[in-house]
Amino acid sequence: MLPLPVLEKAQSELTNYKESGMSVMELSHRSALFTEIIEEAEQHLRELMEIPDNYKVLFVQGGASQQFASVPLNLFGEKGKADYVNTGSWSKKAIKEAEKYGDVRVIASSEDANFTYIPKIEKSMIDPEADYVHITTNNTIEGTAFHEIPDTGDVPLVADMSSNILSERMDVSKLGVIYAGAQKNIGPAGLTVVIVREDLIGKASKSCPVMLDYKTHSDKGSLYNTPPTFAIYMAKLVFEWLKELGGIAEMEKINREKAALLYNQIEASRLFSSPVEKDSRSIMNIPFVSPSADLDVDFISQAKEQGLETLKGHRSVGGMRASIYNAMPKEGVQSLVAFMQNFEDSNQ
Amino acid sequence: MLPLPVLEKAQSELTNYKESGMSVMELSHRSALFTEIIEEAEQHLRELMEIPDNYKVLFVQGGASQQFASVPLNLFGEKGKADYVNTGSWSKKAIKEAEKYGDVRVIASSEDANFTYIPKIEKSMIDPEADYVHITTNNTIEGTAFHEIPDTGDVPLVADMSSNILSERMDVSKLGVIYAGAQKNIGPAGLTVVIVREDLIGKASKSCPVMLDYKTHSDKGSLYNTPPTFAIYMAKLVFEWLKELGGIAEMEKINREKAALLYNQIEASRLFSSPVEKDSRSIMNIPFVSPSADLDVDFISQAKEQGLETLKGHRSVGGMRASIYNAMPKEGVQSLVAFMQNFEDSNQ
Repeated sequence: MLPLPVLEKAQSELTNYKESGMSVMELSHRSALFTEIIEEAEQHLRELMEIPDNYKVLFVQGGASQQFASVPLNLFGEKGKADYVNTGSWSKKAIKEAEKYGDVRVIASSEDANFTYIPKIEKSMIDPEADYVHITTNNTIEGTAFHEIPDTGDVPLVADMSSNILSERMDVSKLGVIYAGAQKNIGPAGLTVVIVREDLIGKASKSCPVMLDYKTHSDKGSLYNTPPTFAIYMAKLVFEWLKELGGIAEMEKINREKAALLYNQIEASRLFSSPVEKDSRSIMNIPFVSPSADLDVDFISQAKEQGLETLKGHRSVGGMRASIYNAMPKEGVQSLVAFMQNFEDSNQ
Repeated sequence: MLPLPVLEKAQSELTNYKESGMSVMELSHRSALFTEIIEEAEQHLRELMEIPDNYKVLFVQGGASQQFASVPLNLFGEKGKADYVNTGSWSKKAIKEAEKYGDVRVIASSEDANFTYIPKIEKSMIDPEADYVHITTNNTIEGTAFHEIPDTGDVPLVADMSSNILSERMDVSKLGVIYAGAQKNIGPAGLTVVIVREDLIGKASKSCPVMLDYKTHSDKGSLYNTPPTFAIYMAKLVFEWLKELGGIAEMEKINREKAALLYNQIEASRLFSSPVEKDSRSIMNIPFVSPSADLDVDFISQAKEQGLETLKGHRSVGGMRASIYNAMPKEGVQSLVAFMQNFEDSNQ
């Protein structure tokens, strides 16, 4: 989802951006108008996330899946090792990709309980010689999230924040690299944001493709080749919308209210339950189940008739899942909660 | 540039695609509506380019610059070699990147004459053991183009067609791999089209990032991870516009007329001249020079005042350059030609 005011703004200037006679999609990435867009987008993001000056903001392509390779290729150098935390399907993909490039150790995993909790990470678990520690801060399929950033000491912490960036306050200075595909909370698909501490740039292995090397994009202000210009423009509009709303602190407050509505409904329910341990629950992706798979199917199809879409849980876990990213208004969650109550009442 | 009817269509359905209540930017890449978009986009492209059934069409990210690594990583396997033709700055970048992954031989180059011609490629020049031969079919900065596809025998030919795909008829069956960044003739930046013969898929080296492996995208119909959904939708609209226009044969006719207008003006001029050899001239990018750098500067600034934008030649070659991609209407070229005549008349 994207905020409606953002889409309306994009629509109004789609064929003629700032009286240029051109669409943003037609602007050269070297033009003054686009330079302004990308610089403003970066500045907005820096303000919103309070990104320290010794971090670079890169706008790249390929999604988190490409970062699964970029991270080890950039941080391992010629030969390296890293500690990964396995909290579900995205972590697993990240681990599998990193194993191509160096020694990967899984220092904690919640696979023993079907990824229904976030393991506690102690400093003592970390190899002080590791090039980095990797976590997935929010797990879309499993509905779990880290509620505090682990302390990894001198070993840089790398986080895939694709599904909860900009949803709550995060202390960027505790991390070495943050990466996020845009399509949850930033903008349209096709853009990936990488926030990287400067001292971690320039160490890429010789076989790192130039487009995966953070130095390439850092040296050229994300303009080494033509970037996804329209997606960057949309991200800028989303950042502006977030700032007008009151920034991330305000967004977090709204997100917590939205999540509480749903978790309270589930807790009070005699029909629905959450598979996720209480202190590991995500405020972005909220899975829940009824006592039977048949009832789950009924719920999903009846909800769809009411205009409540995409409530089907991922096929690997079944059940239902409500994804309530930043752009989902509180009213959307209220409608879902009301429908859940009705469904429960008629299935006693 | 994008065709205005395409932009207007996109604008009209930007906030509500096909009465879904959602923008294309908000559609899940697994939704029925987006499946229809990506399948239609592929089908249109197959029809337009007459792509044989034993070729896959992949919609990926990263631009041609990423393909400079993807090509060797996919075609070399664990250890490989390739023959490259050097026709300018893009070829050079492709060569430099491929050298990271195997033995690269430059079998022909026009660097001796500042890349003002396309070298003739004979079958005898090609190493029959090479994994592939690589060419850049159109050279944006230098204004040159291959006017026939070289015969490389059994060695697969790989072509960077970023700047002339869809501009003229091409016999796809003569090529092993075609790749093109979208932003010249296909759609907005952030999308890359790869057309690859099936037998060349599945040979990637073990260290190839999963997102650069053609097999990843081929196996999943370009939906391994979230693709650049909006750019694919825009490409579909451009393909529909091209089909309505009469397809590539008609587009080529228009492009040849546009190019002839400009080349005839240059040939007849006593002020302007083309640095490019006659039989190597591009119909997409047309560089020209006046007798002095000062006059070039005057021309560019006066043209800009008339609304004729981006006529400055690349800094590496100087002079002027008119880029007349598919979406540039004939009227745009006529205005430029008229302005050139006026400028010449007042600078006798």
